[in-house]
Amino acid sequence: MDLELVTIGNELLLGFVVDSNSAFLGQALSGLGLRIARRTSVPDEPGAVRDAVEQALRRTRLVITTGGLGPTKDDLTKIAVAELFGAPLEFRAEIWEELTARWARLGRTIAERNRCQAEVPLGAAVLPNRWGTAPGIWLEGTLGEVIMLPGVPLEMRNLMIHEVLPRLASRANGRVIRSLVVRTTGVPESVLADRIAAVEDSIAPLSLAYLPSVMGVDLRLTAWGLDPREADRLLGSAAGRLEDVLAEHAYGRDEKDLAAVVLEECRSRTLTLAVAESCTGGMVGERITAISGSSDAFLGGVVAYSDAAKETLLGVPRRILEAHGAVSAQAAEAMAVGARSRFGASLAVSVTGIAGPDGGSDEKPVGLVWFGAAGPAGAESKHLIFPGTRPEIRSRATQFALWDLLRVAKSAGSSKHAGC
Amino acid sequence: MDLELVTIGNELLLGFVVDSNSAFLGQALSGLGLRIARRTSVPDEPGAVRDAVEQALRRTRLVITTGGLGPTKDDLTKIAVAELFGAPLEFRAEIWEELTARWARLGRTIAERNRCQAEVPLGAAVLPNRWGTAPGIWLEGTLGEVIMLPGVPLEMRNLMIHEVLPRLASRANGRVIRSLVVRTTGVPESVLADRIAAVEDSIAPLSLAYLPSVMGVDLRLTAWGLDPREADRLLGSAAGRLEDVLAEHAYGRDEKDLAAVVLEECRSRTLTLAVAESCTGGMVGERITAISGSSDAFLGGVVAYSDAAKETLLGVPRRILEAHGAVSAQAAEAMAVGARSRFGASLAVSVTGIAGPDGGSDEKPVGLVWFGAAGPAGAESKHLIFPGTRPEIRSRATQFALWDLLRVAKSAGSSKHAGC
Repeated sequence: MDLELVTIGNELLLGFVVDSNSAFLGQALSGLGLRIARRTSVPDEPGAVRDAVEQALRRTRLVITTGGLGPTKDDLTKIAVAELFGAPLEFRAEIWEELTARWARLGRTIAERNRCQAEVPLGAAVLPNRWGTAPGIWLEGTLGEVIMLPGVPLEMRNLMIHEVLPRLASRANGRVIRSLVVRTTGVPESVLADRIAAVEDSIAPLSLAYLPSVMGVDLRLTAWGLDPREADRLLGSAAGRLEDVLAEHAYGRDEKDLAAVVLEECRSRTLTLAVAESCTGGMVGERITAISGSSDAFLGGVVAYSDAAKETLLGVPRRILEAHGAVSAQAAEAMAVGARSRFGASLAVSVTGIAGPDGGSDEKPVGLVWFGAAGPAGAESKHLIFPGTRPEIRSRATQFALWDLLRVAKSAGSSKHAGC
Repeated sequence: MDLELVTIGNELLLGFVVDSNSAFLGQALSGLGLRIARRTSVPDEPGAVRDAVEQALRRTRLVITTGGLGPTKDDLTKIAVAELFGAPLEFRAEIWEELTARWARLGRTIAERNRCQAEVPLGAAVLPNRWGTAPGIWLEGTLGEVIMLPGVPLEMRNLMIHEVLPRLASRANGRVIRSLVVRTTGVPESVLADRIAAVEDSIAPLSLAYLPSVMGVDLRLTAWGLDPREADRLLGSAAGRLEDVLAEHAYGRDEKDLAAVVLEECRSRTLTLAVAESCTGGMVGERITAISGSSDAFLGGVVAYSDAAKETLLGVPRRILEAHGAVSAQAAEAMAVGARSRFGASLAVSVTGIAGPDGGSDEKPVGLVWFGAAGPAGAESKHLIFPGTRPEIRSRATQFALWDLLRVAKSAGSSKHAGC
């Protein structure tokens, strides 16, 4: 079954925002076997919105719009579509009451200008939006159906997942486009390609795409237009073969975050964690604490940005900083040992490096990062030189620290047996 | 002058790639004063490509296409457009010779399948592509003009910069589309709208867009089709009026990050900073250290995720944690005081809250965050209840902590005078 998307907003056409909504919508709808036949982006102009929706309906009779549902003057999707369908807007008191009550629970008073959020074309179904103020609207008429969603990504996604996809699922024909991602890190794309060459040659009818980023390389396997069970079987089998070949470099599937894998490993071995960060400035802690429930393994971290902080808060001996500098094997190890002891953790890792763009030298170039790890068996360190900009170097270093933490956790065994 | 974009490729509609080309094209073209009136994305199907280009030409007579120019079976933009214009494809030996020679210089032999890259609709101008194999094609006919570019971002960008924009520049009438963003935080969109209503009503011919995110609300002012100097004058004046009305809520313009504003304020007053984080887990430190050169004001931070860490590393008295809990005014103040003293900083801020989705109660709901601030004059605290998911609550809390830090820095005066 075909449908079309109409995305609305000057910002999209001016290039002021990258249109990430469309990627989500494409994946979510094709996952159900629904094909997006065309996508049209128009500015915040009623005539353009109306024309684009009308033409799209003529081709597919089912259209999803995003954007233009907010409370400000340039939000006119609802008005344009209501006009096209000849369905006047009516104020629905229950929407306004729900909004007012929700704001009250947050201790706030909702502004009167939001009243227009409770206006809905006559006869339309309302899709409740618990993540924002503009409800989704599903309007059906002789021209076909238009599903209007807000443009704010979080709201659009939640409305799709909780309201739209369940209703559309019953219309799909049973054939799906389905993907599975094998996430890898710690291995460059070209080396990866050589390692998986034999598997790659034997995965038909699946396709394989390389998606490199600062986190590593994601390998996306895709099954096109198959029966869902057959698709899952083929994807699972191919993913398993990739993981066998890639060993420790394959850390998870789909959206799995490396930090979540680290936490699961620690939990299963009753290990606790601490971190000491310099150039990453809190990014390792952030990645770990982004995972809900991380507090049962993660005790905390020190962001020791200055040398004095490395001494005072982590107990790094001044002679190490003087003799070897803060970016050195010795400092990295002492930072990890210090964090482990101050927090009373089973394991600690540290990161200290030169994120640039300034501060590099011939001996210690921008991108040089030392990693320390401390556990019951003692401390160790290693270094890498990362390419890229300051944010890239910091993200790569953070990902590597987490990957190293996973390795250390795996080899640490249970802290109970190790006597921590 | 208006034009339209037609982007071609199944992956765009399936959502496997985020369409970053369109953002580049939007900015590059609007910078010249050319307005993208509509953008259409179609799959790799000749009928859909032809139909989309034909309709776009009917509206604007000038169309840029991206994608579908490669050497594989699904690359059929050229064929579809040639058919539409009634211009048969002809093999141009000079293109093939240039390609062959370029590959030979790289020590390679070009595959025969690339011969089709040298086929161009009769009468079309060729835009040499030194960054890949598919040249750009500029076809003019009674229907209007179509500029066909490859979809590979690097090739598309270079062809735009070196071939397309210089030719289009002469058609722009010296009028530009130019924007200026006023960044705000700490004020909800609807309240903001009320506060700036009077300014908003008097900014014509500029337009104003609200861009809300977890960081706050960006207000984008845009001048459409004006003389560049007149555009800059109007934008600067309107931005100034918005900033006057918004006072401390307006913290910067365009891409300015709040953390950079905080650092500039501290530097100008020779203040040093430290942070103590619980629910944000390192995000405040990350935002600050993302700014190159932050080490001259930022000393470091403690991520005190466990109660024990709050006691040991920040000196929060156990009785406070027992009597009031870790998410309380008392704990927030003690954390800030502890961080200030341990790092020897002029100022410190702290964040402790319930990011969810678990851990909330009636008394302390998910989203409740306490902020502490400590300076030479003592400590203070405040709390907010943030809506949203765990990552949103954390991002909003981080942004608020930075904004509070800015306020504290502004009121702290020079640390020299204050005796720190």
